[in-house]
Amino acid sequence: MKLPTDPAENLAALIRCPSVTPAEGGALTALEAMLVPLGFTVERPVFSADGTPDIENLHARRSGEGPHLMFAGHTDVVPAGDEAAWTHAPFAAEIVDGVMYGRGAVDMKGGIACFVAALARHVGATGGPRGPVSLLITGDEEGPAINGTVRLLEWAARKGERWDACLLGEPTNPDRLGDMIKVGRRGSLSGTLTVLGRQGHAAYPHLADNPVRGLMTLLDALLGPPFDAGTERFQPTNLEVTSVDVGNTATNVIPARASAAFNVRFNDTWSAESLQAEIHNRLDAASRRRKYRKGRKEPIGFDLAWRDNPSHVFLTHDEKLIGTLSRSVEAVTGVRPVLSTSGGTSDARFIKDYCPVVEFGLVGQTMHMVDERVPLADLETLTEIYRRFIGNWFGEQ
Amino acid sequence: MKLPTDPAENLAALIRCPSVTPAEGGALTALEAMLVPLGFTVERPVFSADGTPDIENLHARRSGEGPHLMFAGHTDVVPAGDEAAWTHAPFAAEIVDGVMYGRGAVDMKGGIACFVAALARHVGATGGPRGPVSLLITGDEEGPAINGTVRLLEWAARKGERWDACLLGEPTNPDRLGDMIKVGRRGSLSGTLTVLGRQGHAAYPHLADNPVRGLMTLLDALLGPPFDAGTERFQPTNLEVTSVDVGNTATNVIPARASAAFNVRFNDTWSAESLQAEIHNRLDAASRRRKYRKGRKEPIGFDLAWRDNPSHVFLTHDEKLIGTLSRSVEAVTGVRPVLSTSGGTSDARFIKDYCPVVEFGLVGQTMHMVDERVPLADLETLTEIYRRFIGNWFGEQ
Repeated sequence: MKLPTDPAENLAALIRCPSVTPAEGGALTALEAMLVPLGFTVERPVFSADGTPDIENLHARRSGEGPHLMFAGHTDVVPAGDEAAWTHAPFAAEIVDGVMYGRGAVDMKGGIACFVAALARHVGATGGPRGPVSLLITGDEEGPAINGTVRLLEWAARKGERWDACLLGEPTNPDRLGDMIKVGRRGSLSGTLTVLGRQGHAAYPHLADNPVRGLMTLLDALLGPPFDAGTERFQPTNLEVTSVDVGNTATNVIPARASAAFNVRFNDTWSAESLQAEIHNRLDAASRRRKYRKGRKEPIGFDLAWRDNPSHVFLTHDEKLIGTLSRSVEAVTGVRPVLSTSGGTSDARFIKDYCPVVEFGLVGQTMHMVDERVPLADLETLTEIYRRFIGNWFGEQ
Repeated sequence: MKLPTDPAENLAALIRCPSVTPAEGGALTALEAMLVPLGFTVERPVFSADGTPDIENLHARRSGEGPHLMFAGHTDVVPAGDEAAWTHAPFAAEIVDGVMYGRGAVDMKGGIACFVAALARHVGATGGPRGPVSLLITGDEEGPAINGTVRLLEWAARKGERWDACLLGEPTNPDRLGDMIKVGRRGSLSGTLTVLGRQGHAAYPHLADNPVRGLMTLLDALLGPPFDAGTERFQPTNLEVTSVDVGNTATNVIPARASAAFNVRFNDTWSAESLQAEIHNRLDAASRRRKYRKGRKEPIGFDLAWRDNPSHVFLTHDEKLIGTLSRSVEAVTGVRPVLSTSGGTSDARFIKDYCPVVEFGLVGQTMHMVDERVPLADLETLTEIYRRFIGNWFGEQ
């Protein structure tokens, strides 16, 4: 039986499946066809929730004794956008001058294709890892992410699955393969701040209370001083005001309320809860500093609403996982990867509740863009990194 | 022939005409019926403009030799709003406990009713002023004000009319009759300030340029330091931010632009043009102070658009007009009125281009409100003030 040892062949098969979220598009079927010959048992649970499309996911397990390695990822892709703007059709996997073009080439069918090829090479060379390996592949990472990784982890854990480490194959390298392993992620917290004033005529400001002044005072308190200076592994916590809205179209009217939305990306100085408390304290203090209302100390009236659930900050400390991956990268590329926690959130924030997780994949530059593409040389390099990692993590190389 | 010497009777006739802008509602017909017996020639020009309703106005002229006095006002009223909330029907002119209820009672059918009664008394007692008197009454003061006072002044001036002074009968007294004569008005200037940033992901602020920070910096420069400390006759110039709008609903996106609308009420320290220049200078200076963009001095990119035409500041210096009115008020009420320039704009800003203008009328507290009302005693007092003013201005008393 032919094993799927060629990452370019694997990737071409996946790209040709138009699996734009929420469509499965044939991608999980193609992946299943690669995994079965490697000895995996494949299940494809479909998860549903009110108001969201049903999503098909894939759970593949190869039995064994000893530590259990998870590889996580997604086969869904963002839409191609303006297909006419692509120099090569987005679902054709055309290769030109040693570069394969297609939606998902780097985010992240490429990572899956390489991991499968790496496993296939390890199976071909050694008979396969003695320990269990699972692939948790979702079809809902680029969409609402409700019927995806979170549900798949819960589903597998309920069946008794326990994992010792996870490699998430998202594109992590900013410029070239080997640059960066992600060993954690900042948390993310969003809120809406509303200042309540008193409406009035612009010619009689003493009879009104313009909420815009109050809002500016409170936003100043959120924008400075810095929340922290950063930590060993994390950038400084940063707050961005993402919107300010009053919606008053009358030029002679002082509005009754003004609101602002903000988002904070925070490091391990804070928990979501301690940061929320700090923000509350800053707003309370700034609110009480206002003194100009007719000489009386009248605090700025405000309302603070937190949006959605916060994403919690995390940092992975597993030396075996990080060290094995880092040394594999360096051995293949000659580059010692930076251990980073930069960037946005990822599904790693869900996986970290089950086992240590790191992220390493292709170069992300063309992700979500027209002409998403990957050099075939990068596919080969990543496959070799993954192969070394698998062998070394299981102690079989 | 019975002359319209009773201001309450005049006012009741006017209130019973539901002349909500743009409807004439019978109010100008009722007024014409009062003026003809006093020797006035009445014309009712209708003005039109694309996109606005046709508006009927009234021009009444009583011939004479010598200085020419104008009385200006409007018979249109704002809507009654929730009629069920009125304790007395808004167009019934009911009198309860010596108080007349009705929309327009103080703003400003009451002022017109008193001026007509004052004239009637003067005509009855003396045969009338020897000099010419004109009433310029519009039906478009509470609406778009396009087919009203501006057009009526142009129309009369084209016919050769020239005036020596104008009394505008708007309600000017904050608390009690006699408090305040308006001898000028602040100017009003509105603008929209837009800061152009660079959109990006909230997790990668260094790749974006959040326009909200820039907008806050520029608004700070507009809100302080004070433009001036006020002048002899004017309050300090004041700027209010009337709206701030970004309209970004994505919590993880740094927006591309942010805009704010503002309105300035300015005193005679400034012309509209010099104030616009000052605002431009403040924004330019604040824009250049920004240094944080990657260590380079990169000014905040902004766009400033002025809205509509500015209202120019003015102050009337006519000693005969102000002194005669002021002494009439004091003689009747025992109160020396404050000469003020406070409050919003009024049609006086158009009249001042033709002749000196002052404003004096009823107590404004219930204007535009449910249960707008006027004590009959105030109508009598205002009529006596106007009668003395007419007599003294023409030197006939």
